[in-house]
Amino acid sequence: MYLFALSTAEQGASMALFEDERLVFESSIFSRQTHSKGLLPMIEQAVESREGMTVDQIDGFIAARGPGSFTGLRIGISMVKGLARAVSKPCAGISSLDGIGFRFCHSQNPVCVMMDAKRKEVYSAVYQFSNGQLIQKSPEMVCSPEIAIGQAGSGALFVGSGSKVYREKICNRTDDRAVFSSPAMDGVSACALVMSGMSDGGVFDFENHPLNPVYLRKSDAQIHFEGKAGA
Amino acid sequence: MYLFALSTAEQGASMALFEDERLVFESSIFSRQTHSKGLLPMIEQAVESREGMTVDQIDGFIAARGPGSFTGLRIGISMVKGLARAVSKPCAGISSLDGIGFRFCHSQNPVCVMMDAKRKEVYSAVYQFSNGQLIQKSPEMVCSPEIAIGQAGSGALFVGSGSKVYREKICNRTDDRAVFSSPAMDGVSACALVMSGMSDGGVFDFENHPLNPVYLRKSDAQIHFEGKAGA
Repeated sequence: MYLFALSTAEQGASMALFEDERLVFESSIFSRQTHSKGLLPMIEQAVESREGMTVDQIDGFIAARGPGSFTGLRIGISMVKGLARAVSKPCAGISSLDGIGFRFCHSQNPVCVMMDAKRKEVYSAVYQFSNGQLIQKSPEMVCSPEIAIGQAGSGALFVGSGSKVYREKICNRTDDRAVFSSPAMDGVSACALVMSGMSDGGVFDFENHPLNPVYLRKSDAQIHFEGKAGA
Repeated sequence: MYLFALSTAEQGASMALFEDERLVFESSIFSRQTHSKGLLPMIEQAVESREGMTVDQIDGFIAARGPGSFTGLRIGISMVKGLARAVSKPCAGISSLDGIGFRFCHSQNPVCVMMDAKRKEVYSAVYQFSNGQLIQKSPEMVCSPEIAIGQAGSGALFVGSGSKVYREKICNRTDDRAVFSSPAMDGVSACALVMSGMSDGGVFDFENHPLNPVYLRKSDAQIHFEGKAGA
């Protein structure tokens, strides 16, 4: 059984191919190149990494459902929906925050995921793992870094792009007791999306993970439109 | 400054491209395809992930120096040496075990890396991290799984291909107190090679990491030859 996972929640993209529970290919690119340009060749390459494999052999598709870049998510989710539909296989969505948080599932400290959401806000959730298993996850929020730091507590491991943007603020507010991930581990990993989806029981549950975008906040266009309508 | 890292210590390959301290591309493939077949196209793809970039813009090359597959290491190290020589840039070697161990640098428990070395042995070292920084690393060994388990202690996090092959043995000998990584995180990561090389002070130190293979044990050919010579 082959599972293909994709995240376009941030600049660039991350993809992973699993054969049963075994990761057989992963690739992440962090660049400003538009998603629409490099994505299909990357997917092709993932599939071709298995000799003789074709897209219709993939048994299920997974995408980062957000939060993250509005345009990025729309492109990635649309592409995954399109591929799944074309070969009549199921597709599912997993939180982008899980795609970062599950990279640190062996941390005994709480893991505070912070993605930079611009406008002085972060997308955030706090994870508590034990022996690699998820014990608790706080509700996902878009909020000020201060609120996210307060929710994490002072001994947390801070990860994700927002943890670097607001590093000084985090240090100040935790009396320098915060721990930071390497910047090389801050991105949404397609592999971690699958690990999150399998964490409940080992088999990916498509039924309970519908592929709908979760933006956590309104897009600029929506805010602009509502402002106009109310004026 | 661009750094390119490659591991061919196991089946398949892992590669990473850093721009300064920022990871800009990573890719791992786990397959039985021969290293000699897919490696150069993969390296090309890594370089081409930066628009307009060419190999001669890479400022330094890093390879997994072993332990691991003898043939794999020879191919990977030779290729990296060749590339570095061709563009007159330095190259360095980092332990394959670091390429697994540093993936778990946020574990508070000791991290016991075990690569399956066949012949009922493992390549192993035990890492102790604190707040993402390496505090201690035991000498690298090729030994029986029993010896590696004894060195790790019962509350360790067991990672790497050998930890899956000898999972039952590990459980028995640690009174089921051992913790295991997800199989999706068991591979040697080129990104983690660079993290290891930067862990001392942030800048990769080529001088102190010569690129020589470290096999930890003799190859079958050597053993065979010495047996003959002694006969």
